[in-house]
Amino acid sequence: MKHFGDCLYEALDRAGTPVLVGLDPRLTSLPAALRQDVDASDPNAVASAFTKFCCEVIDVVASLVPAVKPQAAFFEQLGPAGMQALAETVAHARKRGLLVIMDGKRNDIGSTAAAYADAYLGAESVWGADALTVSPYLGDDSLVPFFEVAKQRGGGVFVLVKTSNPGGGLFQDLVSDSRSLYQHVADYVEARANESLGEHGYGFVGAVVGATYPEQLGELRSTMARTWILVPGFGAQGGTAKDVAAAFDEQGQGAIVNSSRAIIFAHARPEFKDAFGDAQ
Amino acid sequence: MKHFGDCLYEALDRAGTPVLVGLDPRLTSLPAALRQDVDASDPNAVASAFTKFCCEVIDVVASLVPAVKPQAAFFEQLGPAGMQALAETVAHARKRGLLVIMDGKRNDIGSTAAAYADAYLGAESVWGADALTVSPYLGDDSLVPFFEVAKQRGGGVFVLVKTSNPGGGLFQDLVSDSRSLYQHVADYVEARANESLGEHGYGFVGAVVGATYPEQLGELRSTMARTWILVPGFGAQGGTAKDVAAAFDEQGQGAIVNSSRAIIFAHARPEFKDAFGDAQ
Repeated sequence: MKHFGDCLYEALDRAGTPVLVGLDPRLTSLPAALRQDVDASDPNAVASAFTKFCCEVIDVVASLVPAVKPQAAFFEQLGPAGMQALAETVAHARKRGLLVIMDGKRNDIGSTAAAYADAYLGAESVWGADALTVSPYLGDDSLVPFFEVAKQRGGGVFVLVKTSNPGGGLFQDLVSDSRSLYQHVADYVEARANESLGEHGYGFVGAVVGATYPEQLGELRSTMARTWILVPGFGAQGGTAKDVAAAFDEQGQGAIVNSSRAIIFAHARPEFKDAFGDAQ
Repeated sequence: MKHFGDCLYEALDRAGTPVLVGLDPRLTSLPAALRQDVDASDPNAVASAFTKFCCEVIDVVASLVPAVKPQAAFFEQLGPAGMQALAETVAHARKRGLLVIMDGKRNDIGSTAAAYADAYLGAESVWGADALTVSPYLGDDSLVPFFEVAKQRGGGVFVLVKTSNPGGGLFQDLVSDSRSLYQHVADYVEARANESLGEHGYGFVGAVVGATYPEQLGELRSTMARTWILVPGFGAQGGTAKDVAAAFDEQGQGAIVNSSRAIIFAHARPEFKDAFGDAQ
């Protein structure tokens, strides 16, 4: 079985880009052709539009990028119908050869974490993605079940370290023993990455570090030398290409940069409106 | 619209107990009569067994306890069919007059947190519970969307402060400015509770504090005087009645204690085996 870190490394090489496409469907942002006949109060209808939209985005980007990152919350917002759309989106992306990083930020105590791991990383699950984002607040024994399931099926786990939102520092920047909380989490993640190295020198345990904190991104690239870094916050949230440069190693590897709104809602941007734009 | 803190207070008074029943279904732990004809590899069949089991537990406990706490992970483990079972469980509990605290430990950056809030607290959602557990790692702006939706519909939010698992201290016990991370989170939660007080003197923003750390539970009861405390870890995880006593105020209010395995899987305990036991 292939190691997730190696799969990701080779997918970046093949695609020639570290950009992954975030799938964050919102009804109001879909192209007019997809939303105009949809009853917004009918979750089944909205879920069908989400599936169609995500599968079309996947078809467009499949040969261009290494991976997609569905945001679970936007599907969960629709109830069970949305979760079915999520399943179809995951299946379609994998069929098109894309790695799927599920953005669920899940966590719980051990036995419950194992259920989440099965749900979102398990080979038998309809939501069985290649990797999952998880939250570190509950500590080591809440994370190990994710690492174990990931190891069994060649998957990956991205632990939140330094998040892209403006208020992320409230707790993450608290300093203990001369190191901030996010640095403590980073040390933990790097240790786990070191224990799970693939042939290309990166582990299957990775970290989430926001593009909106470029200084910390560079610092964390140094201290987490064997850790894949997933970088959200590029584009709509304000991070620039210069900001994310520090996330990469000398080969331009070791990081993947998420772009959601700037890519999937490009039809609504002024410069693309003529080519892809809505009639409205 | 009724305030969640007041609803909970009055539900405890009515039931005469602060024990809430955790709904953590696992196929292997269901009574034999419910699991014997179930194909474990068929998520629809397992989900039906979960619905039946949870609804039967709800029928038994409806007049005895104030609330139930479905654990989302065990339903998610079954894929979309499990999420439908979760919807039916929530609906049945609410129909039987029980408060429903969804244990999802969700969180994300603001706009995504809003989607989770709609999914699990929204009045229109099939999973629309009365309250939701959330994780604090992403800070204030990741929590506010939950508070806003809770306020709009008379719901509650329980923020993880000190969790019941053995490894919870890895990050939660880190000390910054003479206070541990969980105490910083507790200060934040108490401030939000104070801003959201109901008639009975408690806010609709609460905290999760494990029964397995009785000393911290007493300390946190003092520092979070206006905060509802949800106490997991009683029973199967090792917390005793004596351990949780410190969670309550002088009226025996202000805390709810979760008991999952000890209640819902009572049929498997030696002392109840004759009355409820399996034939096997």
